[in-house]
Order: sequence, then C-alpha cells, then structure tokens
Amino acid sequence: MTWLMTSSGSRFRLDLQYQGGLFHGWQRQPNSLSVEEALAGAYERFLKVPVRLDGSGRTDTGVHARHQIALLEIDRKLPPQAIQLGIQPYLPEGLSVFRVTPVTEDWKPRPAVSRQYHYFIWKGCPPPLYYQPYSAWTAYSLDIDRMCEAAAHILGEKDFSSFRAAGCTALHPIRRVDRLMVLNRGPYWEVRVTGNAFLRQMVRIMVGTLVEVGRGRLLPSDIPTILEKKDRSCAGPTMPAHGLFLWKITLPGDGSIEIPPTCWEIPLR
Amino acid sequence: MTWLMTSSGSRFRLDLQYQGGLFHGWQRQPNSLSVEEALAGAYERFLKVPVRLDGSGRTDTGVHARHQIALLEIDRKLPPQAIQLGIQPYLPEGLSVFRVTPVTEDWKPRPAVSRQYHYFIWKGCPPPLYYQPYSAWTAYSLDIDRMCEAAAHILGEKDFSSFRAAGCTALHPIRRVDRLMVLNRGPYWEVRVTGNAFLRQMVRIMVGTLVEVGRGRLLPSDIPTILEKKDRSCAGPTMPAHGLFLWKITLPGDGSIEIPPTCWEIPLR
Repeated sequence: MTWLMTSSGSRFRLDLQYQGGLFHGWQRQPNSLSVEEALAGAYERFLKVPVRLDGSGRTDTGVHARHQIALLEIDRKLPPQAIQLGIQPYLPEGLSVFRVTPVTEDWKPRPAVSRQYHYFIWKGCPPPLYYQPYSAWTAYSLDIDRMCEAAAHILGEKDFSSFRAAGCTALHPIRRVDRLMVLNRGPYWEVRVTGNAFLRQMVRIMVGTLVEVGRGRLLPSDIPTILEKKDRSCAGPTMPAHGLFLWKITLPGDGSIEIPPTCWEIPLR
Repeated sequence: MTWLMTSSGSRFRLDLQYQGGLFHGWQRQPNSLSVEEALAGAYERFLKVPVRLDGSGRTDTGVHARHQIALLEIDRKLPPQAIQLGIQPYLPEGLSVFRVTPVTEDWKPRPAVSRQYHYFIWKGCPPPLYYQPYSAWTAYSLDIDRMCEAAAHILGEKDFSSFRAAGCTALHPIRRVDRLMVLNRGPYWEVRVTGNAFLRQMVRIMVGTLVEVGRGRLLPSDIPTILEKKDRSCAGPTMPAHGLFLWKITLPGDGSIEIPPTCWEIPLR
C-alpha cells in the first residue's frame, strides 16, 4: 500500500461540505473559528498528531460550500477508511467530509480546472423559513433578459478590478469567467457562475451588479464601462454571503463525483 | 371592520413554521425557550401590550413544524397587515409567521380535523450535511412490505397506551390514526401519519416500532399484541425528534393553504 503513503506519513484528498453560517470563512484567522481550523482541529483531536491542511480555495465568512476540496497530510500511516469514518464523532455541526481518497506525493489541491458558484435570490420577503439561511431575497421584479444581456459582457478573461473587494490579496486582478447564467426558478432567481478562480467577493459583486441591471438602475451596456473603470465603486453592491454556495470544484483529471444534495436539490427519488 | 375585532381588541389566526432544533418544544416551560414564549414575546416587544397565544397542538423539543396554527389575542385594535409585517424584525431565527387571518370571537385553534406528521430516515450514515438537522438515519436495510403490513394494524381508533411516552398528560389514550404510509424515497425512507390527535411521542414510537419490523426484530403480526398489552415497553424505541415534522394541520372549514416549502420539497419551478 505504499502508493498511498509517503515514507513518513499519509496524504489524502478530502471532499467536504459546510454550512457557511456556522464558520468564519475557510481560512484560519485570529479570534474566530474558520472551517480550516475546525477541520484540522477535529483531525488532531482524533489522531493525536499534528496535521497539515491545504484547501482548494477560500470562501468568505457566511458563504456555504456544497463542495470544497482539501489536502490532508498526516505524519502517520493510516488507511482512508480511518480518515473517513473515524473523524465523524469529532466533526463540529455544519461540517461534513463525504469522500476521502489517498493521493500521491505530487497531488495538489490547486489550481482548479473550474470553480462553480450558485447564488440564490428568493422573490419577495421573507423567503420560506427553511430557505432563509441559504437565500438572499429581493422585493423588486427583475428583467431577466437584461440580466442575461449584461452577463454576456462579463464572460471571458478580463481585469476584474471593479468586482474586487477591498483587502483582496490576489497578486493580479485578471480572472476568466467561462459561464454566467441567470435562471428564473419560479419562486426564486438562481445565478450560476463558472470560472478558473475568483477575486475576493467577486461573485457577490457580480450578482449585485446583475440585480442592479435587472431592476433597471444600470443598463447591460454599462458593464463594459464598469470593467474599464477598474474601480470597485462603479459596480453594484455586494450581495449577502448567505445566498452564495461554492457549488463544485473540478481539479485536473476529476471524473464525476457524487455530491450530497443541499436544500436546493431534490434528493433522488 | 368590526368583523375582525372584539369590543376591546383583535383576534388572529397565525399559520407558522419553526425549526425544532432551536426551541424547547411548543409549550412554555421554566428555564428554556419554547416557541410559544418566543412568539408571544416577539409580539409583546412589538406591540408593547400583553398578548395571549393558544396553539393548535404541542410539539416536543426538537420536533420541526412545517405547519403550526395558533390563535393570537391582543387587547388592541390592529389590522392583520400590521400583525404579519410588523412582527418580522422581532422574530427570532428559526421562527416564521407566513399567514395572518382575522378571526371571529367563536374561532378556536382546536380540535383539528386532522394532523399530519412526516418522519424522515436517511439510508446510511451520515445523511447529507444539509439534511442532517432534519433527518434520522439507519444503516439497516428495511423491508418496506413488512412495514406496510404492520402499519395496517395501527390504523383506526384504538387505545395507544403502548405508544405513549411517560409524562403524557392526555386525559385518555384513545386516538384515531386515519392514514399511515411508509414510502421508499430512494436515498431515504419517509413515514407519513395522519390522525385527529396524538399522544406524547406517539408518532416517534410508532416509527421506531415500524423500523423494528422493517429490520426483522418484530413481526407485522406483533402489532395487535403490542397494542393489546397497553405497555410502552412492548413497542419499539422512540425515534429522535429531529427527523419529525408536524407537516400540516387542518381545522374545520379550512380550504387549501399555500405552505412555504421545506428542504424536503423542491421549490416550485
């Protein structure tokens, strides 16, 4: 079984889910509990040895993950079954590891081939009780044709400085948006975004800008100008974190992965 | 508008939802927050006058309500719009009033024509993260034909002493079960029970007994004997509260009511 262990330890790919409202984002920070700290801490309490954890990407405080990926490195030889089942009693509420795969020494959790985010906006206030933690809302009627027209201007590899929050630590503002769809789901709106990587709060600012277009406060043709300005203040407001899900990450070589359903997907019948 | 007000105040029917995990049951009790206390307290903070609240029935600690009904009486004349919209900022997380209807002086929240409960059991452990607060689970494979056969023995007006938890304050143990269905939903089991009223933990004990039948630890033909014994210790275990939803209450004269969806229902598309 040397293929799953280094000389001194083991390396695993973790596929996980978390409820954003219970954590202060993915990344460790002082004085508040991040997913990274909660997950590493659970493994350390379970295994009684230090572990190293490296995520496929960050999520901000309050953003949910239907799918997140991380590399777990342990200075101990352990089978994947122990990593998957043994951790269960140690995990805090709102955090779940649904798949554990042994990986070789050259496997890395980044860069991703694609990252997909979904944003949910209930029509009217308040959303149903059981969807309130997972949905923003709007009392305005939105013009979906104009929103789709605006979305087309966002596609491609561009400088997204206007869609970048203060405090973003990315080295440069160039990102590639491959798909951007606005869907009318009857009682709610759903915005789906796929790209290689995203700047801080970029998805929430993009959705906020599309809502401004849907309400008629911006024109679809304003989008190229907003991008050219490279000025955050030209774009729309940042939508609330709790409407956003990191929906799916695809790494090089990934096949189809069965991801446990959220409240937005009917469980298979 | 005298039809909605008594000489000195107003009376409203409230249709509401709550997340059971955040409250210690419906009924007021010392040292822990019940839905009744949270809801009455919210109206009192909003209106600055005492209110009286009377529920259609109780739910135990941890049991969710997709639909609960209550009578709200206020010593003040107020339009229903104020009661519905004004309360929003005062409601705690996990509690929602989705419908407010003015009612006449003779309207009562009890007795119900029917109460429907749904119980959810995920197949295998653990359930998907976003369903964990709303679902029990079982690692056993259950024989649904035997469970349906057992369910048939429970139907009708009977003495349900064997399905009654200690501490039940009901005056007598006779209840009428009109429908009891076990559904195989692919990744989970769903048990639906309809009756006029239920004893303390009766639904959870009934589901626990059906699971024992499904596992093969009881026979369908054991059910009549269990009922005849009038002894709680003969029936199966009490299932956990968090898998149970008070699903729908029908009062005399009720037409169709639109109830906001839970995570078990796909939102309309």
